[in-house]
Amino acid sequence: MKSNQLLVKMILDRWYAQVNNFDTILNALTDEQLQKEIAPNKNRGIYVLGHLTAVHDDMIPLLNFGNKLFPELNEPFIKSPDKSVAELPSAEELRASWSKMNEVLAQKFNSLQPDEWFEKHTAVSAEDFIKEPHRNKLNIVITRTTHLSYHTGQFVLLK
Amino acid sequence: MKSNQLLVKMILDRWYAQVNNFDTILNALTDEQLQKEIAPNKNRGIYVLGHLTAVHDDMIPLLNFGNKLFPELNEPFIKSPDKSVAELPSAEELRASWSKMNEVLAQKFNSLQPDEWFEKHTAVSAEDFIKEPHRNKLNIVITRTTHLSYHTGQFVLLK
Repeated sequence: MKSNQLLVKMILDRWYAQVNNFDTILNALTDEQLQKEIAPNKNRGIYVLGHLTAVHDDMIPLLNFGNKLFPELNEPFIKSPDKSVAELPSAEELRASWSKMNEVLAQKFNSLQPDEWFEKHTAVSAEDFIKEPHRNKLNIVITRTTHLSYHTGQFVLLK
Repeated sequence: MKSNQLLVKMILDRWYAQVNNFDTILNALTDEQLQKEIAPNKNRGIYVLGHLTAVHDDMIPLLNFGNKLFPELNEPFIKSPDKSVAELPSAEELRASWSKMNEVLAQKFNSLQPDEWFEKHTAVSAEDFIKEPHRNKLNIVITRTTHLSYHTGQFVLLK
């Protein structure tokens, strides 16, 4: 196996393991549990779920895969803190968006050849990329994987 | 930059970013705050700190760097759940161990050449490694980075 191909496998394996881990916790929680705070006066489960879906949706334009699926989640779940937006989507809707998001990202990820993962992502200029070749598409997955793990550590507290 | 060198940089950059992130939170917490639970009836801050130090210490033999620095942390912080061990090291001792751990791992990481990161770690046999070349030293860092992020998401709740 070529080293680029091997590294892409290592990174994507870890991404999917973290997504599955989050999914397992989510599937074990009721909609009522999602309305609870992860700790006193901290974010609610529903907010964490919406936030992760919105952040993962941002990966679509960043990886040059097209337009976001759920641009309406940006305002309530990235720009705004929890409990500052009067009406959020229901737990049922957010579960469906999260699930769709994972499905679409997996399809898009599968469409890339190993070497394409080392091309620049869309938030870095061609000039900067020459000096900073680590700012590639694979690095987006690396950073979003640790972001997902961070919030999974919180989400599991709802159990 | 050669591709293995680039891959190693991407992974180690993320590791150090997560260690720094945890450090920033730790340095902002008092010893009293470390005695609190991250959420009601969950692990205490002190346990999370000891657990991460013990898990990172395990990386030393796994990466074939030598013997663990703090083998005495294995029993209370990996084998045992929180609140089951009568006497734990003090917050001051654990802060010092965590700091020493980061320093030693950074030295060891710097001693490896990029290609050496793609060699097998010590928990996989030479036979299995032929079939599963992703079970290399770099993968140990990848999985421990997401483990660290997971617990950092919990640790930050102590603030």
